[in-house]
Amino acid sequence: MLAEIITIGDEILIGQIVDTNSAWIGQQMNAVGFKVHQITSVSDNREHILAALKEAAGRVQVVLITGGLGPTKDDITKKTICDYFNVGLRFDEEAYKDVEHLFKIRGREVTPINRLQAEVPVNCITMYNRVGTAPGMWFDEGGVIYASMPGVPHEMKYLMEKEVLPRLKERFETPFILHKTLLTQGIGESFLSEMISGFEDVLPANFKLAYLPSAGAVRLRLTASGNREEVTNTMNKLVAELSDLVREYLYGYDEDTIQEVVGRLLKDKKLTLGTAESCTGGYLSHLITSIPGSSEYYMGSTVTYSNESKTALLDVPADLVIKFGAVSEEVVKAMAEGAKKKFNADCALATSGIAGPGGGSPEKPVGTVWIGISTPAGTKAKKVLLGDNRLRTIEVASMTALNMLRKELSGNA
Amino acid sequence: MLAEIITIGDEILIGQIVDTNSAWIGQQMNAVGFKVHQITSVSDNREHILAALKEAAGRVQVVLITGGLGPTKDDITKKTICDYFNVGLRFDEEAYKDVEHLFKIRGREVTPINRLQAEVPVNCITMYNRVGTAPGMWFDEGGVIYASMPGVPHEMKYLMEKEVLPRLKERFETPFILHKTLLTQGIGESFLSEMISGFEDVLPANFKLAYLPSAGAVRLRLTASGNREEVTNTMNKLVAELSDLVREYLYGYDEDTIQEVVGRLLKDKKLTLGTAESCTGGYLSHLITSIPGSSEYYMGSTVTYSNESKTALLDVPADLVIKFGAVSEEVVKAMAEGAKKKFNADCALATSGIAGPGGGSPEKPVGTVWIGISTPAGTKAKKVLLGDNRLRTIEVASMTALNMLRKELSGNA
Repeated sequence: MLAEIITIGDEILIGQIVDTNSAWIGQQMNAVGFKVHQITSVSDNREHILAALKEAAGRVQVVLITGGLGPTKDDITKKTICDYFNVGLRFDEEAYKDVEHLFKIRGREVTPINRLQAEVPVNCITMYNRVGTAPGMWFDEGGVIYASMPGVPHEMKYLMEKEVLPRLKERFETPFILHKTLLTQGIGESFLSEMISGFEDVLPANFKLAYLPSAGAVRLRLTASGNREEVTNTMNKLVAELSDLVREYLYGYDEDTIQEVVGRLLKDKKLTLGTAESCTGGYLSHLITSIPGSSEYYMGSTVTYSNESKTALLDVPADLVIKFGAVSEEVVKAMAEGAKKKFNADCALATSGIAGPGGGSPEKPVGTVWIGISTPAGTKAKKVLLGDNRLRTIEVASMTALNMLRKELSGNA
Repeated sequence: MLAEIITIGDEILIGQIVDTNSAWIGQQMNAVGFKVHQITSVSDNREHILAALKEAAGRVQVVLITGGLGPTKDDITKKTICDYFNVGLRFDEEAYKDVEHLFKIRGREVTPINRLQAEVPVNCITMYNRVGTAPGMWFDEGGVIYASMPGVPHEMKYLMEKEVLPRLKERFETPFILHKTLLTQGIGESFLSEMISGFEDVLPANFKLAYLPSAGAVRLRLTASGNREEVTNTMNKLVAELSDLVREYLYGYDEDTIQEVVGRLLKDKKLTLGTAESCTGGYLSHLITSIPGSSEYYMGSTVTYSNESKTALLDVPADLVIKFGAVSEEVVKAMAEGAKKKFNADCALATSGIAGPGGGSPEKPVGTVWIGISTPAGTKAKKVLLGDNRLRTIEVASMTALNMLRKELSGNA
């Protein structure tokens, strides 16, 4: 079963934005048994879009189209699709309700231009977009499915999950494919690979293992296809085996995030958390508060970028900073204990490091980060070296801190 | 002058990696006067690669190919290019020196498989790769240039900069293309479009205007080609005109970010900043500290997720929270003033809102956010309604806060 992705928009071709949509769509399509045959990025140009649609429809059963559905003059996808099918537009009352709703909750009036967004080609099934103003469009013509979605990532994802994927599963007999992903933190790809090489060598022929590294984490994805019951049983057995092998680094499965896992542990144990951040600059707090309902267990953070604020807000003794430096085991432990006290929390995490590019020294090079943790069981700290990419250091330090707390709370430290 | 990019590799189609190469290449090609007509991602499959090469060569003058040059069996680009031109391979002594050098500095012996990487098609000019083992290949056949490069980003970038771009400038008389992007915050795409429709209607024929929306911001990109002097002069005039039209919302140009612009303003005016975050949960602080050198003007933040911590850390009077609620003008102003005092800063920003999905009420629906700002000139606050997407609300509230500060500091409020 083959699909193609067509992304429309000059901003991709001139390199103004990186196309992250296609990778996400590729993953989702694979998961439901479709192979993405080709990804084509074309400009906001009528003839170019028409040619791309025709070529793709000649090669595959499903054509997924993103972009060019905005209300402005440069967005011509909808009009061009009408030309492609040689049809006109109709006004879709329910799509208009979505437009009205979105403007209402943003405290604005619908303009005439936005009213036009509720128009759709007469031959499409409207895929209602509850998170944006441009509806998605589903066409089933000449044995080929075409699905057109906005290019805004969260709108595209909403429509893929709520509309496109369920409709594809209904429309096509897709083979049974099972994916299971193990999520690890704190170990590099090549070390993992050595650790599990025995497991990999005896993997059944219908199972594939992929390493998916990202900043600070490596996902291990097992994929199999075949008979539903047989594949499911073998998968469960293999996941248990692999989990045992990487137990020390395993923080979750599939769509888990480390901040969700930590939040669940805190809720289950009825514990609260505070944080004190220096080099992570608020990102640790952002990860924690990105989880809905985090206010149940998260008290707050102090981002103490200046040494004075470490003393003023967290009661870190000034002489400790002078004696050991802000990036030290002593200071990061004092920060964690200060945060625990100030926020009246059961647990606290603290970070202090040199995110760079400036501020490094031979003893404390750029990328040196101390992470402190304080729980009812006591306070400790650990040093990590994270390299010279500022944003990566901020991300990895934040994830490492959360993983330290996860290990403590799950008795795995 | 038209170019196409062909990226080769299953890892892109299954979504295992995001193709960041194409955006970078797109930017570079634009800068030297080439328009990227299409980006095509194909699998590691001989027929598919052959078809993509043939189609691209029929449409453009330059075909840039990345990926599939590794030493393993799944990498078939070089062999397929030989088939495409119907030629054989030759051993390139100088390319082999690159392979030997790279293995030497990594403390390894060259394997027979890696020796084969020094083979190139007989009809190519070798583009020596000093940072990897796979040489680049330059072909000039039938009036079309083909340049094949490895997919590893830093190797591709090395070859583009040292070999491909200089050769293209020598080989073609490229036209002059100029881009200029205006960055706005706090106004939707459709309102902007109405505001500048008069400007858009009389745009010269060789100028194009594009709207590029993202969470909380809309970029306006003007593109033109033609005679260098004439285009530059007209562009300057048009950018000045358009800037005046959208002045209220304009925070910068081209690659500026709002956090950079605010940082520059603070540095220029020798002012310091503190923040107090409730609903933005650390994201505002993260944006500010993502800028290298931000510790010069940024003192820190308190993320006060609980009402008690607002009182304990920011001296917000408890009765204010009881009387008006945490999400109120009164409390957010008290938070801003508290942050200014606690961090001993000249300016402060504060956020308090309902990011959702829970916590909304008829009077204060999910997405209601109060933003407070305190500067040497005084303290004020503003309410925004940002809808029901938690992460979007966090992002847009943070950007709105920064934009309020920008307006204050630039005397534009």
